[in-house]
Amino acid sequence: MNQVPIGVSARHIHLSEQHIEQLFGEGYQLQVLKDLSQPGQFAAAETVAVVGPKGRFDKVRILGPARSQTQLEISRTDAFSVGLNPPVRESGHINGTPGITLIGPAGEVTIAEGVIVAARHIHFHTDDAAKWGIVDKQLLSVKIDGERALILEGVIARVSDQYALDMHIDTDEANAAGAKNGDMAWILS
Amino acid sequence: MNQVPIGVSARHIHLSEQHIEQLFGEGYQLQVLKDLSQPGQFAAAETVAVVGPKGRFDKVRILGPARSQTQLEISRTDAFSVGLNPPVRESGHINGTPGITLIGPAGEVTIAEGVIVAARHIHFHTDDAAKWGIVDKQLLSVKIDGERALILEGVIARVSDQYALDMHIDTDEANAAGAKNGDMAWILS
Repeated sequence: MNQVPIGVSARHIHLSEQHIEQLFGEGYQLQVLKDLSQPGQFAAAETVAVVGPKGRFDKVRILGPARSQTQLEISRTDAFSVGLNPPVRESGHINGTPGITLIGPAGEVTIAEGVIVAARHIHFHTDDAAKWGIVDKQLLSVKIDGERALILEGVIARVSDQYALDMHIDTDEANAAGAKNGDMAWILS
Repeated sequence: MNQVPIGVSARHIHLSEQHIEQLFGEGYQLQVLKDLSQPGQFAAAETVAVVGPKGRFDKVRILGPARSQTQLEISRTDAFSVGLNPPVRESGHINGTPGITLIGPAGEVTIAEGVIVAARHIHFHTDDAAKWGIVDKQLLSVKIDGERALILEGVIARVSDQYALDMHIDTDEANAAGAKNGDMAWILS
């Protein structure tokens, strides 16, 4: 069976350039704290506060670089705490999703939409996908072993020569499986 | 395939009689807020605060009646918030688990052990188990369908003529599966 490393995504936010400037000041550039598994992606040194109808998170990590649309990714557990009911979506598919208020050191922005629970997915480099006979958008069953073993169904394959092999799940999924960042999972089909 | 209703357990606590008295006062009796799916079990009107090394929860629901040992059941997400690393255990198996501080209106108690992440399990009435050929302690694979479909492995069968059919999972597991209280799951094997 083909093995894939697990990347656990804690709540995080992608910001548009416009929102970076509104939150951090004109011409502001995000600082790189740490490179992520996907080439060119990084955890920024900066965080923002997010404020929902029922609660807030004070330090939500920004992931860079800037994107065309601002998108906040939270777990369903987080969603209950802030009082929102975001749908499970693929990254970038934010049409009709709830909004939220963002607070940075230089200002505050209320986005009309952009809050999602990220759909679990695996990034495959084109070469890995070809070798394993996996195509972009394919839905996979993936087993995470251990004392809380489970099989995730409908894991979306995303294939690109810009990607490195990594399965992205959120903290609810990781905690339900007793898995942590860097553990391995097995693609069943 | 055999269907079983899902009962989602949010964080909760079972208290010994001694701890009820220390937290609420001498001779105190828990008030019934709501009967639970298992005969004789109830959600009490009372809550306690629990305080761990890194955080606290102010209103943790007490489930009654009193038990021989105090036991706090939290999700792994909760465990990170309070700063503990409890093992996944069956109810009652608290030997060597972390302790925590409990605060009630009449006093405060620090338990030396008793914090667990509950192992997922299904309560079967003896008749259901017999009909389906399931025995006590059997490990089952159970599918939860939907847009976050998954298969939980190693779900422990607990069989008694005192039980009503119900699968107990925690909020991490429910959120990972996109499931809510009263949804149905399927026993695969």
